[in-house]
Amino acid sequence: MQKPSLPKGTRDFGPLQMARRTYILDTIKDTFQLFGYQQIETPAMENLSTLTGKYGDEGDQLLFKILNSGDFIKDVSTLDLEKGSASVLNKVSEKGLRYDLTVPFARYVVMNRNELTFPFKRFQIQPVWRADRPQKGRYREFYQCDADVVGTDGLVCEAEIILMIRRVFEKLSLDDYSIKINNRKILTGISEAIGEEGKEGPLCVAIDKLDKIGWEKVKEELTLRGFGEESLDKLAPLVALESDLTGKIGFLRQFLKTSETGLKGVEELEQTFEILSQMGENLDHIDFDIMLARGLSYYTGAIFEVKVHHVAIGSVSGGGRYDNLTGVFGLSGVSGVGFSFGVDRLYDVMEELDLFPAESHTSTRLLLTYFDQSGFQYALGLLNQFRKAGIKTEIYPNQAKIQKQFDFANKKGIPFVGVCGGDEILSGGVSVKNMGSGEQQKLSVNEAIKLVC
Amino acid sequence: MQKPSLPKGTRDFGPLQMARRTYILDTIKDTFQLFGYQQIETPAMENLSTLTGKYGDEGDQLLFKILNSGDFIKDVSTLDLEKGSASVLNKVSEKGLRYDLTVPFARYVVMNRNELTFPFKRFQIQPVWRADRPQKGRYREFYQCDADVVGTDGLVCEAEIILMIRRVFEKLSLDDYSIKINNRKILTGISEAIGEEGKEGPLCVAIDKLDKIGWEKVKEELTLRGFGEESLDKLAPLVALESDLTGKIGFLRQFLKTSETGLKGVEELEQTFEILSQMGENLDHIDFDIMLARGLSYYTGAIFEVKVHHVAIGSVSGGGRYDNLTGVFGLSGVSGVGFSFGVDRLYDVMEELDLFPAESHTSTRLLLTYFDQSGFQYALGLLNQFRKAGIKTEIYPNQAKIQKQFDFANKKGIPFVGVCGGDEILSGGVSVKNMGSGEQQKLSVNEAIKLVC
Repeated sequence: MQKPSLPKGTRDFGPLQMARRTYILDTIKDTFQLFGYQQIETPAMENLSTLTGKYGDEGDQLLFKILNSGDFIKDVSTLDLEKGSASVLNKVSEKGLRYDLTVPFARYVVMNRNELTFPFKRFQIQPVWRADRPQKGRYREFYQCDADVVGTDGLVCEAEIILMIRRVFEKLSLDDYSIKINNRKILTGISEAIGEEGKEGPLCVAIDKLDKIGWEKVKEELTLRGFGEESLDKLAPLVALESDLTGKIGFLRQFLKTSETGLKGVEELEQTFEILSQMGENLDHIDFDIMLARGLSYYTGAIFEVKVHHVAIGSVSGGGRYDNLTGVFGLSGVSGVGFSFGVDRLYDVMEELDLFPAESHTSTRLLLTYFDQSGFQYALGLLNQFRKAGIKTEIYPNQAKIQKQFDFANKKGIPFVGVCGGDEILSGGVSVKNMGSGEQQKLSVNEAIKLVC
Repeated sequence: MQKPSLPKGTRDFGPLQMARRTYILDTIKDTFQLFGYQQIETPAMENLSTLTGKYGDEGDQLLFKILNSGDFIKDVSTLDLEKGSASVLNKVSEKGLRYDLTVPFARYVVMNRNELTFPFKRFQIQPVWRADRPQKGRYREFYQCDADVVGTDGLVCEAEIILMIRRVFEKLSLDDYSIKINNRKILTGISEAIGEEGKEGPLCVAIDKLDKIGWEKVKEELTLRGFGEESLDKLAPLVALESDLTGKIGFLRQFLKTSETGLKGVEELEQTFEILSQMGENLDHIDFDIMLARGLSYYTGAIFEVKVHHVAIGSVSGGGRYDNLTGVFGLSGVSGVGFSFGVDRLYDVMEELDLFPAESHTSTRLLLTYFDQSGFQYALGLLNQFRKAGIKTEIYPNQAKIQKQFDFANKKGIPFVGVCGGDEILSGGVSVKNMGSGEQQKLSVNEAIKLVC
């Protein structure tokens, strides 16, 4: 007899984990919808022609490919076999599993561009698959949770992303965090201003390590990458800058005065803050981080990244503005801005900070228990009344010792147990025990409904 | 430039479809949870050793297999290639996509049997994949929606399945339907009673076609399968039986008097109805169909199947009791009962009967529009107030002609539009247009919140 197992890097989500994941995801969904985002779903399988070449060579290696059905090797020759896997691949597989939600979304927009109403605000919460080496916190199947608005460059979208992040965190009782924000145009401006135009790529890669390796090592790396001493001298005061928001903006206005693009970036940032203020919102949790550089090749405007303080985990949310989501599928000029929540990381943070509510809103509130057949029959009548009142209620389905029924409630974390014995049958009520406090009360059905609901 | 496309047999779900699917699935989820079922999820990928051999030879052919990562052909020899796909398969693939939710659930129960609290009530709503030939209403990726309780033979579970089906249908405003119910033991009893013990398999396969081909043809088929003339004569009155529930049960008591198993089946059915009565419930929509035969090899007790009348579509829900869910994974004696909803079919039925609510509970209620920059700034302040009141609200993100903003609301099906012009700014209110009736009113923000919420 085989002992069943799970594929490496995959997980089951049991009832407790699912209730907690649902709690997080419902909070996020609810927020997206409050801001007018609409949910879509795309298939798990995409044509390999849609997926390959979109994630770099390494990404192509990490795609899960699906074997063609039927006689899949019919077109494979011994020569193909000798040439190796790459030669065989396109003869045995034409589909792969979704690697992220961005490429399928771009494909969806292009295929439905005549039916969609732009600006189009969509969110999407689905698993993705990557053939990565599994390790702690890294899985081969995991959920992504993306929201994007495409077909507009209005900065109100950036302001709304900040508000959505703050709403989700408030609802989840997470209050010690920063929303780091920057603008790609500022980074472009900086490289112009220090005389290294067009080199924001290597600049950002190096500067990204500032926290970890320090300025001296970053300088070494930049020198290796061809940055002149004069450029680095110009850069130094910016790296050393410690100031509040107004100070940073004032400094940058001066620092970037020769770069039109750079100044535009500063202006976009200020306008976003101005929109927040017009909405009656403050700048709480917002951290303008001039050195924040994220997925540079892709973003063209605002960049976001959210870190929870005092928890050793990477960013739990991030995103930014882009100018060319769908160009690779032949539709250019689709500008948009998007962000995503890292559900697995949020889960870990919530668990570490013990922020999950003790009782899930999706689980049973009340177990009806009984001593004998007459109690069972009596409980059946009550069961229906509690459920009609909207209370998640169960009855133990087989006659069993009362202790076993209580154990069941305990193990399943059911907060109330209703006892149906001779007294209760006579009086037409039910004795309700609060499993947390141990308190037990004899109640009418209506009183019991009020107590447990 | 490549023109993107979808793999055959797969679908995108756009905003409208998703809102409607969510409406159906939320109703089902809510009902499962009211009855104490807990959600779990299992990975899309399972080891092929878990999947193969569970669905028959045809099922094995329909499994989507996943190519091993890296140099996947390294163990394939030219000899393997000559021998054909079957020889190559186990060297290039060790994982496949989930084919249903039952086998992964059985695997889950076995792997977690020491942690689970039995009776264990779980539901699971996830896509499954089958390499079937796509056709109208048949997809290669589709959702299944299963609920099972395992570790109990209490008939209250059967009664609750009937109640769950009725609740879902009531909430979806579907009222013209039958829940066909039968019991596998009755079918076993019938084959015993007509002197063809152990032949309920072919008996049911033939009788299943009664509606389509008629009794004469069914008799021919049964004769071919070795049923004697005498047996068929004994069977005839049962096939011809037209009676109400009490009449059917009376007839069967007599007909099955020599079959202990058969009488047990009748008793289980009666007890289930008795439990419904003790719950204060009637037998509405229940149709005891002695000829109902469904997935016989698997079920051992009650069998269910739900048909919507006057809609040309197969059953939209079905299930039954089984005795040996997990035997194939080495854990015997796990009895349970389960059922599932066919989400795609329910969707089609709802669409055909025009039962989807005009307005989705997940979509935007109000679009704020404006004429100029000052209106935009004013609208930004209102936006936040409406959202804080829990109203799904949007603002058009770029300055545009008011007509374009109204078109946007129309296309997106937003039921209310708030206009922010000079008058509204002066008075501190907003003019709200009901897009359905065309009526427009000048309101304070609080009045507007009451109107659109």
